[in-house]
Amino acid sequence: MYNLCRKQTTLRNSFEDICIVDTTEDRPSSLAVMWVNDHLRVLDQRLLPGREVYLDLNDASQVAEAIRAMAVRGAPAIGVTAAYGVVLAARHRFRVSHFTWRTALEEDFTLLAAARPTAVNLFWALQKLRDVLEIVTGDDDPTAALLATAQRIHAEDIAANRRMGELGAALFTAEGAALTHCNTGSLATGGYGTALGVIRSAYAAGRIHHVYATETRPWMQGARLTAWELGKDGIPFTLLTDGAAGYLMATERIQWVVVGADRIAANGDVANKIGTYQLAVTARHHRVGFMVVAPSSTVDLSLPEGKLIPIETRAPAEVLTLAGISLAPPGTRAWNPAFDVTPAALVDALVTERGVVHCPTRESVGDMMSRG
Amino acid sequence: MYNLCRKQTTLRNSFEDICIVDTTEDRPSSLAVMWVNDHLRVLDQRLLPGREVYLDLNDASQVAEAIRAMAVRGAPAIGVTAAYGVVLAARHRFRVSHFTWRTALEEDFTLLAAARPTAVNLFWALQKLRDVLEIVTGDDDPTAALLATAQRIHAEDIAANRRMGELGAALFTAEGAALTHCNTGSLATGGYGTALGVIRSAYAAGRIHHVYATETRPWMQGARLTAWELGKDGIPFTLLTDGAAGYLMATERIQWVVVGADRIAANGDVANKIGTYQLAVTARHHRVGFMVVAPSSTVDLSLPEGKLIPIETRAPAEVLTLAGISLAPPGTRAWNPAFDVTPAALVDALVTERGVVHCPTRESVGDMMSRG
Repeated sequence: MYNLCRKQTTLRNSFEDICIVDTTEDRPSSLAVMWVNDHLRVLDQRLLPGREVYLDLNDASQVAEAIRAMAVRGAPAIGVTAAYGVVLAARHRFRVSHFTWRTALEEDFTLLAAARPTAVNLFWALQKLRDVLEIVTGDDDPTAALLATAQRIHAEDIAANRRMGELGAALFTAEGAALTHCNTGSLATGGYGTALGVIRSAYAAGRIHHVYATETRPWMQGARLTAWELGKDGIPFTLLTDGAAGYLMATERIQWVVVGADRIAANGDVANKIGTYQLAVTARHHRVGFMVVAPSSTVDLSLPEGKLIPIETRAPAEVLTLAGISLAPPGTRAWNPAFDVTPAALVDALVTERGVVHCPTRESVGDMMSRG
Repeated sequence: MYNLCRKQTTLRNSFEDICIVDTTEDRPSSLAVMWVNDHLRVLDQRLLPGREVYLDLNDASQVAEAIRAMAVRGAPAIGVTAAYGVVLAARHRFRVSHFTWRTALEEDFTLLAAARPTAVNLFWALQKLRDVLEIVTGDDDPTAALLATAQRIHAEDIAANRRMGELGAALFTAEGAALTHCNTGSLATGGYGTALGVIRSAYAAGRIHHVYATETRPWMQGARLTAWELGKDGIPFTLLTDGAAGYLMATERIQWVVVGADRIAANGDVANKIGTYQLAVTARHHRVGFMVVAPSSTVDLSLPEGKLIPIETRAPAEVLTLAGISLAPPGTRAWNPAFDVTPAALVDALVTERGVVHCPTRESVGDMMSRG
């Protein structure tokens, strides 16, 4: 059904050499990240919801560029994608030389690790693949072992999402809707979703009847991606601007604000999409619960607190233009942090596949992580 | 210098019959609202910052439409515009009949009053013009008296802005920048500005050295209009998304969040551009001062508290599209309140031309208003 390798002129130059699948007509219900035969296929989320275009990625530099340019985004999806990136890289390096591939592969690890700085799942996944290399002996071809691990990471992420969905949905015990930020669904993960997985499960269980989604400037992941996923699932939802969330909490009954995470420090501080912190402050002001949903791979025990999490600042142009249209006068300076940090003290529930931590602290996060 | 009455095809149908001045080339330093010879000229703020196009308005329905469609916006500017609208309406009605003009004029009052519901300056200005009609005797031509009053309202608004500028600037006594929301400058008022007037005065007095401006979705008044005004004035500023304001307060030193108001209830509750409430909550969380700057014509003593202020909900399309581009999948439902209400308890300083009220209450707001 796929029309493989048809080039799209609307894509960025950096992707010009990438084989592309445009399934706008077919509209299959697909994952954002897929291993297809011998390569990686990702849905180009920059073009959603207008067009469903897939990128076929065949080497580490294409994978790194897909992550950097946000064709793939969402911390768990970035981790899964990077894992497959190592598979592609190792296969290529091994084909070039059965003897120097290990050394050469270091370049690819460096390239992939540099793609984006905040989501720790990227580094976590790369380390998992490194661990595999430790047990590949001599000049054996590492591809099969690496692929098996990447696919296990992918499958375990989906399973973790399902488990988090159950755990988080069980916390919806009152009247009222859910409010979510950015996109944390199938598109942001291996499949199903973190915060959006909880919303899916809570809706399926009849525990919520309506979802509010912030549009999430500047990339509009809420308007473009969460709306697309909720629409496909038939879950009733309303979109709002980021600035309207406080007024929503003041005028509508919200049970929980539910968000994902890009990195969680050992003390429970949470780095997530810019705007999250403000939502947490406003939720606390209204005594609305604030729930963070992320796989345990998002927890970085090496960082004692959130202020040590590296926060990516992206190009001002992402704020100053939209779809090529100038939003501000020429010469305007813009600040574009991609994430912010919410202190643990504002988090009412942290949900991972290992369990729920209420009012997370260094101790309770440590306990949860030690559950294995 | 004006190229009068040249038609612009990019304007909405409702403005097709309006004479238009395109001064994109000339770029005069102009007010948003001007009485020019025998008619009203307004800068079409929907086209900024890309183009400076003026609309020449000649009757009440054109004026009402310019307000409704947000060619003119900002509570004080709406008040001034509506005042001139009555002048145009009365002149026309009197020309038609020296005997029935008073009765016929009621239709125009109704039309103008229905243009937008939240900004009380609109109703305040209409009442001021009604008061003039009380003293116009018999079948005298009311135009001159009405015009004199409209021009006095306009001049007094500018004078009030200058006075508020001084009063508000004096409150900047510490280190740190100002953060403002939406547009409250020359474009939103008779001239100079309310919150942006305070920022202008504080910068001129050397009390601030940098301004942060939220882009203000969905209409982007911050990105389009505030950036335009600050750029013209040479005041150093940085634009940010609405969701980044909390993280800004957590990471940069902000002295005051400074905003305008569309209506202030007798107890000091403030209706202002959507997103204001969330900024006030976040400012309080960070112990950053929250200053509301508005002429006393914005205070509505007839409403005991903010929850009685009518809040305009505008078309979902304003959230779902930008410059004709779809931001969300077809069929997406959006909530688009144009304003929200900030309780007086979150306001640290209310600045009007009559003085500064710290931590406003019913009593202190009443005292301030009785100063006359």
